[in-house]
Amino acid sequence: MNIGPDKYGIKEGINEVIVTTRSLNGKPNAAPIGIISDKGIFKVKVFNGSHTSINILDTGLLAANIVGDPVLFVRSVLDDLDIEMFTMIKTDTGITFPVLAQSSAWVLFRADYTSGSTAMTAHLNMIAGNIINQEPRSVNRGFNAVIEALVLASRYRVFNEESLLDRIESYGSLVNKCGGTCEKEAYGMIIEYLQ
Amino acid sequence: MNIGPDKYGIKEGINEVIVTTRSLNGKPNAAPIGIISDKGIFKVKVFNGSHTSINILDTGLLAANIVGDPVLFVRSVLDDLDIEMFTMIKTDTGITFPVLAQSSAWVLFRADYTSGSTAMTAHLNMIAGNIINQEPRSVNRGFNAVIEALVLASRYRVFNEESLLDRIESYGSLVNKCGGTCEKEAYGMIIEYLQ
Repeated sequence: MNIGPDKYGIKEGINEVIVTTRSLNGKPNAAPIGIISDKGIFKVKVFNGSHTSINILDTGLLAANIVGDPVLFVRSVLDDLDIEMFTMIKTDTGITFPVLAQSSAWVLFRADYTSGSTAMTAHLNMIAGNIINQEPRSVNRGFNAVIEALVLASRYRVFNEESLLDRIESYGSLVNKCGGTCEKEAYGMIIEYLQ
Repeated sequence: MNIGPDKYGIKEGINEVIVTTRSLNGKPNAAPIGIISDKGIFKVKVFNGSHTSINILDTGLLAANIVGDPVLFVRSVLDDLDIEMFTMIKTDTGITFPVLAQSSAWVLFRADYTSGSTAMTAHLNMIAGNIINQEPRSVNRGFNAVIEALVLASRYRVFNEESLLDRIESYGSLVNKCGGTCEKEAYGMIIEYLQ
């Protein structure tokens, strides 16, 4: 039986995952990216000049890490992740490739890209996958609010629009009401970063 | 080893789950409710007069169903669920109790309640739990938007405030952009219900 990316958590629609890649000299990189799954086709748009884009040009590979930890999501946007947060896996081609040690699951894809004026589109074909943590998790609106605030914070970093700050702050009450310790910590990191 | 509700997906913070209960004569009921987990204490607030509240008074039991299907969430608010959507489990006390056949996991709790003027507070002690589907699932902002729209739709049903309709409609673009077929169907059911 052929097991596809959906068994590892990449479902129909846009999947907010942390994409890991490596440079030619082996430096790992992590960035939150939306992977599109539409009628069995998997693809991703990556802005030119980003580490992820350069690494895909160099290696033709990316890994999608399914993550449920809000702090890890925020760190992957605001910080470089520490080297010990990556696990190096050995691929069939002999290249070692970084995935996130704390992911619930990961899928390694071959990325066949088409270049565009501002971004490349990479068509993804699954090479391998692994499920690390199968614990179920209920819906937490505080977690979801952190993700929305993080999307806005990434946008603020590029466009610097003041109106985004108000929208980011508007998520605070939901995080405080519904989130656990991790959600509050993650949201606090976003607010601290913006100050 | 003592396995607690967190292993079944009930994490710190407010857990948006579908609570199933049964009446004295065995009729199952399902309603979306937030279960609070705070420092190892599990509790829930249930409005007086609701089916859930009456059933807890009668049986002292409730089950928290961890659900990832947005259509199931919406149906549990807007419709009564069909009888075949429930699985009857046998408890230690001999009583059969309904859980959702499509849940990822469920936890059966003894509910020790304190009555209040508008709502009861039930303190929850886990009796049993089961994991049914361990498939990981990436973050989908379209799914999260359906949950937010559903919270507002429940509020609209009670308070009938027109301003809520605009907020519900504002989630449509995120559902269409990021959601899969299930998210679009679920959101469509909310919009249809409101018309």
